[in-house]
Amino acid sequence: MSGRPIRSGAEYIESLRGRNLKVYLMGEPVSEPVDHPIIRPSINAVAETYDLANSNPELASAMSPLTGERINRFLHIATSPADLVMQNKMQRRLGQLTGTCFQRCVGMDALNALHSVTFDLDRNNGTGYHDRFKDFLVRVQHSNLVIGGAMTDVKGDRSKSPSQQADPDLFVRVTRRTPEGIFISGAKAHQTGCLNSHWLIVMPTMRLEAADKDYAIAGAVPVDAGGIAYICGWQSCDTRSAEGGEIDAGNARFAGQEAMIVFEDVFVPNEHIFMDGEVEFASTLVERFTCYHRRSYVCKTGVGDVLIGAAATIADYNGVERASHVRDKLVEMTHLNETIYGAGIAASHQGMEMKSGAFLPDEMLANVCKHHVTRLPYEIGRLAQDLAGGLMVTLPSERELRHETIGPMIEKYLKGRADIPTEDRIRILRLVENMTLGRNAVGYLTESMHGAGSPQAQRIQIARAMQIEFKKELAKTLAGINSASRQEIADDLSTYMARVFAPVQRN
Amino acid sequence: MSGRPIRSGAEYIESLRGRNLKVYLMGEPVSEPVDHPIIRPSINAVAETYDLANSNPELASAMSPLTGERINRFLHIATSPADLVMQNKMQRRLGQLTGTCFQRCVGMDALNALHSVTFDLDRNNGTGYHDRFKDFLVRVQHSNLVIGGAMTDVKGDRSKSPSQQADPDLFVRVTRRTPEGIFISGAKAHQTGCLNSHWLIVMPTMRLEAADKDYAIAGAVPVDAGGIAYICGWQSCDTRSAEGGEIDAGNARFAGQEAMIVFEDVFVPNEHIFMDGEVEFASTLVERFTCYHRRSYVCKTGVGDVLIGAAATIADYNGVERASHVRDKLVEMTHLNETIYGAGIAASHQGMEMKSGAFLPDEMLANVCKHHVTRLPYEIGRLAQDLAGGLMVTLPSERELRHETIGPMIEKYLKGRADIPTEDRIRILRLVENMTLGRNAVGYLTESMHGAGSPQAQRIQIARAMQIEFKKELAKTLAGINSASRQEIADDLSTYMARVFAPVQRN
Amino acid sequence: MSGRPIRSGAEYIESLRGRNLKVYLMGEPVSEPVDHPIIRPSINAVAETYDLANSNPELASAMSPLTGERINRFLHIATSPADLVMQNKMQRRLGQLTGTCFQRCVGMDALNALHSVTFDLDRNNGTGYHDRFKDFLVRVQHSNLVIGGAMTDVKGDRSKSPSQQADPDLFVRVTRRTPEGIFISGAKAHQTGCLNSHWLIVMPTMRLEAADKDYAIAGAVPVDAGGIAYICGWQSCDTRSAEGGEIDAGNARFAGQEAMIVFEDVFVPNEHIFMDGEVEFASTLVERFTCYHRRSYVCKTGVGDVLIGAAATIADYNGVERASHVRDKLVEMTHLNETIYGAGIAASHQGMEMKSGAFLPDEMLANVCKHHVTRLPYEIGRLAQDLAGGLMVTLPSERELRHETIGPMIEKYLKGRADIPTEDRIRILRLVENMTLGRNAVGYLTESMHGAGSPQAQRIQIARAMQIEFKKELAKTLAGINSASRQEIADDLSTYMARVFAPVQRN
Amino acid sequence: MSGRPIRSGAEYIESLRGRNLKVYLMGEPVSEPVDHPIIRPSINAVAETYDLANSNPELASAMSPLTGERINRFLHIATSPADLVMQNKMQRRLGQLTGTCFQRCVGMDALNALHSVTFDLDRNNGTGYHDRFKDFLVRVQHSNLVIGGAMTDVKGDRSKSPSQQADPDLFVRVTRRTPEGIFISGAKAHQTGCLNSHWLIVMPTMRLEAADKDYAIAGAVPVDAGGIAYICGWQSCDTRSAEGGEIDAGNARFAGQEAMIVFEDVFVPNEHIFMDGEVEFASTLVERFTCYHRRSYVCKTGVGDVLIGAAATIADYNGVERASHVRDKLVEMTHLNETIYGAGIAASHQGMEMKSGAFLPDEMLANVCKHHVTRLPYEIGRLAQDLAGGLMVTLPSERELRHETIGPMIEKYLKGRADIPTEDRIRILRLVENMTLGRNAVGYLTESMHGAGSPQAQRIQIARAMQIEFKKELAKTLAGINSASRQEIADDLSTYMARVFAPVQRN
Repeated sequence: MSGRPIRSGAEYIESLRGRNLKVYLMGEPVSEPVDHPIIRPSINAVAETYDLANSNPELASAMSPLTGERINRFLHIATSPADLVMQNKMQRRLGQLTGTCFQRCVGMDALNALHSVTFDLDRNNGTGYHDRFKDFLVRVQHSNLVIGGAMTDVKGDRSKSPSQQADPDLFVRVTRRTPEGIFISGAKAHQTGCLNSHWLIVMPTMRLEAADKDYAIAGAVPVDAGGIAYICGWQSCDTRSAEGGEIDAGNARFAGQEAMIVFEDVFVPNEHIFMDGEVEFASTLVERFTCYHRRSYVCKTGVGDVLIGAAATIADYNGVERASHVRDKLVEMTHLNETIYGAGIAASHQGMEMKSGAFLPDEMLANVCKHHVTRLPYEIGRLAQDLAGGLMVTLPSERELRHETIGPMIEKYLKGRADIPTEDRIRILRLVENMTLGRNAVGYLTESMHGAGSPQAQRIQIARAMQIEFKKELAKTLAGINSASRQEIADDLSTYMARVFAPVQRN
Repeated sequence: MSGRPIRSGAEYIESLRGRNLKVYLMGEPVSEPVDHPIIRPSINAVAETYDLANSNPELASAMSPLTGERINRFLHIATSPADLVMQNKMQRRLGQLTGTCFQRCVGMDALNALHSVTFDLDRNNGTGYHDRFKDFLVRVQHSNLVIGGAMTDVKGDRSKSPSQQADPDLFVRVTRRTPEGIFISGAKAHQTGCLNSHWLIVMPTMRLEAADKDYAIAGAVPVDAGGIAYICGWQSCDTRSAEGGEIDAGNARFAGQEAMIVFEDVFVPNEHIFMDGEVEFASTLVERFTCYHRRSYVCKTGVGDVLIGAAATIADYNGVERASHVRDKLVEMTHLNETIYGAGIAASHQGMEMKSGAFLPDEMLANVCKHHVTRLPYEIGRLAQDLAGGLMVTLPSERELRHETIGPMIEKYLKGRADIPTEDRIRILRLVENMTLGRNAVGYLTESMHGAGSPQAQRIQIARAMQIEFKKELAKTLAGINSASRQEIADDLSTYMARVFAPVQRN
Repeated sequence: MSGRPIRSGAEYIESLRGRNLKVYLMGEPVSEPVDHPIIRPSINAVAETYDLANSNPELASAMSPLTGERINRFLHIATSPADLVMQNKMQRRLGQLTGTCFQRCVGMDALNALHSVTFDLDRNNGTGYHDRFKDFLVRVQHSNLVIGGAMTDVKGDRSKSPSQQADPDLFVRVTRRTPEGIFISGAKAHQTGCLNSHWLIVMPTMRLEAADKDYAIAGAVPVDAGGIAYICGWQSCDTRSAEGGEIDAGNARFAGQEAMIVFEDVFVPNEHIFMDGEVEFASTLVERFTCYHRRSYVCKTGVGDVLIGAAATIADYNGVERASHVRDKLVEMTHLNETIYGAGIAASHQGMEMKSGAFLPDEMLANVCKHHVTRLPYEIGRLAQDLAGGLMVTLPSERELRHETIGPMIEKYLKGRADIPTEDRIRILRLVENMTLGRNAVGYLTESMHGAGSPQAQRIQIARAMQIEFKKELAKTLAGINSASRQEIADDLSTYMARVFAPVQRN
Repeated sequence: MSGRPIRSGAEYIESLRGRNLKVYLMGEPVSEPVDHPIIRPSINAVAETYDLANSNPELASAMSPLTGERINRFLHIATSPADLVMQNKMQRRLGQLTGTCFQRCVGMDALNALHSVTFDLDRNNGTGYHDRFKDFLVRVQHSNLVIGGAMTDVKGDRSKSPSQQADPDLFVRVTRRTPEGIFISGAKAHQTGCLNSHWLIVMPTMRLEAADKDYAIAGAVPVDAGGIAYICGWQSCDTRSAEGGEIDAGNARFAGQEAMIVFEDVFVPNEHIFMDGEVEFASTLVERFTCYHRRSYVCKTGVGDVLIGAAATIADYNGVERASHVRDKLVEMTHLNETIYGAGIAASHQGMEMKSGAFLPDEMLANVCKHHVTRLPYEIGRLAQDLAGGLMVTLPSERELRHETIGPMIEKYLKGRADIPTEDRIRILRLVENMTLGRNAVGYLTESMHGAGSPQAQRIQIARAMQIEFKKELAKTLAGINSASRQEIADDLSTYMARVFAPVQRN
């Protein structure tokens, strides 16, 4: 974590080499992930977050109030609504550039959440987590590292709390405490970009009870700490990246990544512990993190831009782009895509200041944003498949295209518009397949469904925030029903209506 | 327009008395609209815009850069994204307080649009409209008047332009010009709140050609100018306001209003003319006005809050509020309602500065907002009817409730939960009826569909703004297709992507 | 009930005169419903069921196995899938001809349900209800009478059973028993067409417990029996039928009807009692009735045909029928409308024979049909409003059209295509208003939602019938999961999958 | 085609061996498709169509009027609505048993369409195709062969007709005629189950003009005829079938199949030609085939049953099956699935007799059925992913599960409910992945979209059949608009309304 800062995507990729990680993929240990054909595209996606900060610093970097230096925006704590909005804009742009998950939002959102949670925790308990956290943050900002956030425990029997599980390891927990620090064990599932990070921030995954004290742990761990194993998922069509050629992968250069992380007595020294046993703050941390993170799914609008573009391109290649129903479907896809964007931007814009000075997005709108993300990309994907035509799933492989005798048949018979190379038509169809069935459908669809909380989690949050009693009063008043007292809009910004009707500072 | 400013809802109502308007309703002339039982609720709704400015000045008033005075926000020109956002917040609040259309947005949006259009028109043509417009605006701000906007012509045969119509009056036009001003004739349909305004701003309704010069007219006309007739619509259930009692109307105090305005050689003096013959600016004016106005439909989220509250109340009165499907429907209604709000706020937040200094909302997001308004209130209304139960359409009248022998039967048999008065149950059901079938369904549903442009109008705008070529390049790049040149995001904020990726000023 | 049979709509209308009914509407007693301008359109709609039987006997009549005579199909017991299907076809046609609810299905479905329930009840309990019921049926068939079904109790506190209510009358119950019969008291809400019937069939509304014995009552009562009062609902825009003119009503000739029926010690002689105290058969009766009745909502596809036609007509009158988005909306409306029809026909086709020889529609598909009816007419209505344009809610009244000075303005300015009379344009817009906001929106929308059970009732039935364990076995088998035993499709037609895979008799 | 009939799935598989087919898959020739691990599952699926005919002959076989023998239902010509309905029931059952496309419907639908088309063609032109066709059919029925239908040409530039293409081979065409027969060249794309068939029936893919005479060709060709090459698609996750293990494939035993067929001067003798040059019957054949085939997508309801079962199973394994939102999602999935079934059954039930004696499904309802198939499986799939949880896309491979050191970690950490083996949980998740992203998503989603015609094709057919003028008359009549003549329902069953209102024969 010392050493000179990483200054580009290329330097970032180099920084990952030579770590002695214990990684498994398809039953085999992976000695050097950077060179593994299935893993590499996910590393390339993270690398884009460095390069964009160079090519468009206003979008993807920020001035750190902590260091006074210009830092990557993924390491910046938002201290205004404008900062929150800029996160969304950067996310959309990276979605456009990679067409996939660039994996760095979890860390950004974890850092932002910990900023205010450690502050509030200290104020409440007289602890010193916030300063520790800031020390860690300064070093990370200076070195320009990738932070992974590790939240989702494997959970076991969902009807039982962590401490009630038959196997105590089904949630990550403290197994031993020493004067220098703690040892943790357990496993985190579906960890986005973990292999491609430098540090992991471990956090609890749900509200905890007093009995769950050993599970109320937050802290930072180097990715190559002793005792960690990474078990990669075998995801739809990912082996195509290892089959040679570049067409059949659809998006040869970029991909997402999920793995399970298994911790076996991993040591965390005191200076990297940001919560230890304060069960009453576990849900606070979870809620703030998900509030940031649900709105971070604005990234999918950038991915959606790519898919809309792919659908329009194949319609163009087929010679039907001007058909009114084609045009209308592109409009609908755009309408849906911008719906997500609008909700995300509104959530960021209506953010509120926490006591630590960090800004938190509006919780209601963040949930509305993510809830759309669990629905609309599926419909955008369906429409893309409609425009693509059936060929997107019956294409022969690139090897047929290159084949001495079969190749000419492919060239001849898969020709669309005369002026478009058959290969280009195939390439764009493979991209649509990649995004709706293949490797990136994992990120664009299923992860959109479950990442940062499944749909029901958002509905629960919306239910909590919807202030139904306030709305009932509105209705009763207009219906002429006498009511004990007309409920006023609270001043307390912790309620949604107070935030809705709060004056906006002139910007 | 001189005289002391209007300072409250009550003063506003008084200001409407004694005008010698030619008004027809259900075949009868209306001598004093203020006292007409069907018209009065719509006047009450406008009056709330005055009272809110007093009770919550931060929300509903603003400091005028023109006069240096605090003025009603409906008369304020937005000179920052924050101003645009505050318009939306005020609109939502007034929707909550009235449960209907408070009719004053058209004027606000017309004034804002004219501010930049007259400026640009003068820059282009060397005319002096902008100063004239500002003079008018200063007086209006000072007197605190209600401005109605009159845009929608009756249109006749939709396949023909104004000048091609068999009857030249099917679009409002200049019939005569004198050194002092012009005379106009024609009719504007569906005019919201026209009777309840002090001035009307007449504007063209569509793109015009050179031959349509006499139709390229914008100007201000007092509501009681000679030659104007107002023909009120007969709207669903509006006669209930005249039947005595207050329950059956559902929302006895507030309602919307639409009428047709017929102009017969109405004189407009030069100082109130803001465009005359500049056909090339007609579409500019229409597009800017609709951009403001489509996002102004955020008001419907306030109305939606009332309907959600009404649905929750009746579920409560029926004793089923805790049922999981009831709860889930309230969540869905909230999710949809906040979707509209989010898109509107994002449109305002992402507004851009015009040369005149006025800020215009983001066009794409404004259209996305309005497009949702043409769909989601119908679904919210459907869910409200689901929760209300069939009784909402089979209720006997208030007269039965008050009837000597029938009244006790009603009391006995329409009782729900024992602790809730039968009358309260009836009242809330009548409110749901009012908002989904009755007088306010006109505003909450059909006007949501067609006001500020029908759904297809938004789709056309979305199609224009969706930058499909930019998105095709994104896809081709990722698919590995060689393309002449990778298209960069333009700096020109007139394109959507430029606005998306423009840095936000820190606020 | 003796006397010569009713042979036409006109004779039916005459048959209703001179009954001494106690009817209230808008606070006033109605001496002769036949002549009441608000009630009459609902009588006209029933009359069409007689006239169609004459003009198209194959569609609207059937040969009675009981009497050997050709009878109105509404009085026929279905003894084959083809009979069930023909009910749906007749219903659609009557929906087309009246554009509203013709009110006679409740009785048809009640008779069909009682046929098998009384048979099964007798087989189980050794009672003699089935013969009694058939005697009644023969007389009714012979006289060609209208039967209303009275099921929906007012229910009071929904968390309590009938016998637990504070007021025992909140469900209809037996108050006294004599050797000759019983006396009943209570009230039924939302009773479709009750005033326009000759007999009412009273039935329980829900599953009953042993303590609810006095509520387990089914029987036939003449509409003019002593002790009955009818309290009509005041429904959206129904007073327009009493305002003179015929345009503003939208559909001047036809309408639906709902009223509350209050029973005060009404006597039912033994020969008209079809269930008395057999609480265990209450839910059987409710379930069979709703099974028939949910599929009977195919009538709404006929009403939908009218609304689709109205939307196409106004698009035509506006000169935009050929626009691709207009065409596309008409296709979507048709697709949705035929979805309801398809589910209904499939439910009827897949009907199963009961022990009495009557055929019952498929319960799953009947619920799927009705569940669509709670959603799709709202979307069809929304699309109709889209095509209609805003004028449908801002139209002045017919009186303005006929007004000496205002009339010519209306003629001039509400002109659409030059070759279409302004009045015709207004007429079709008023029809769309009638069907989406006005008097018939009550039937096409809200009654579609709640009639024959609210949406959640269908979901509960679908959940019961969905055989999730069978489907889990299918999945486990394909996933290679060892399972105790592969579950076979049962032979018992009482499960859905057995009916799905039952061979169809060749027809 | 001689030899003894195939009597079981096993015999069918043997019948495929040793054919000298020219097959390519992933760039390699496939010497024996039966033994190829990627192809074999698709053969297994077809084999089920033989075994079901043995285990449930009423469902999957029929008595042939041509041969007097009991034959497989896939080779039977439907001569009653009941026959059409039984096709749907068999299709649903096979979908349940295989969870994929069993590939034999295309042939069934092609045979049924050719029966009436050759008959009508002969009546019109005095040709002798119908007898030829019946001769072929008798032999096929006797030998119990699999017939593939080859319709979809590769099409090239979609704005040009076959004869206008730069390359004349972009539609299959006659290249040479001899006294004994014809030679054909060209290619058919997306051919379902072609490799697994014994015969292919070649048909034109669209309406043809006079200039397209050489493209108006229908005939039967043995799959192993000289000059044919098969180029298999590389489909999502299909290589998993070749990676060893059986879990990761999700559905190890069954799969669908699509390939491109390239014809190079393939000879068709006269006795196997069923159309040659009669361009005016090309569209008739296409329309009748698609009418049968669009309703054949009822098969997807059987596949849907599997997916619903899989979703319920994983909810069960996670311990949340009783949660109300889980239950509600299963209900919704069922509702949508049965919607497709209902529309299909109704289409079959409302089938009409052709002059040849064959029955054709109702065209409107067949299109409504298929149009739902282009939408609802996507939503069912989305809901299945919702219930599955994110683990369905982050699972490690079976090799990790079997791995000495990693295996125990997987066992420990991917445990859900304590009583469910981890492996079973993984198996069911892999099945959901298979059906929503993997190999069978090709069939359940994308093929549902495009097979038998893309969505717009159905909308065009619905538009043609929707009888909008008839519906306009209904509306005008009710609105009181004088119309030249009230349009009656035609007797001609070729219109939809005539079929709707036609009496049903009692069955």
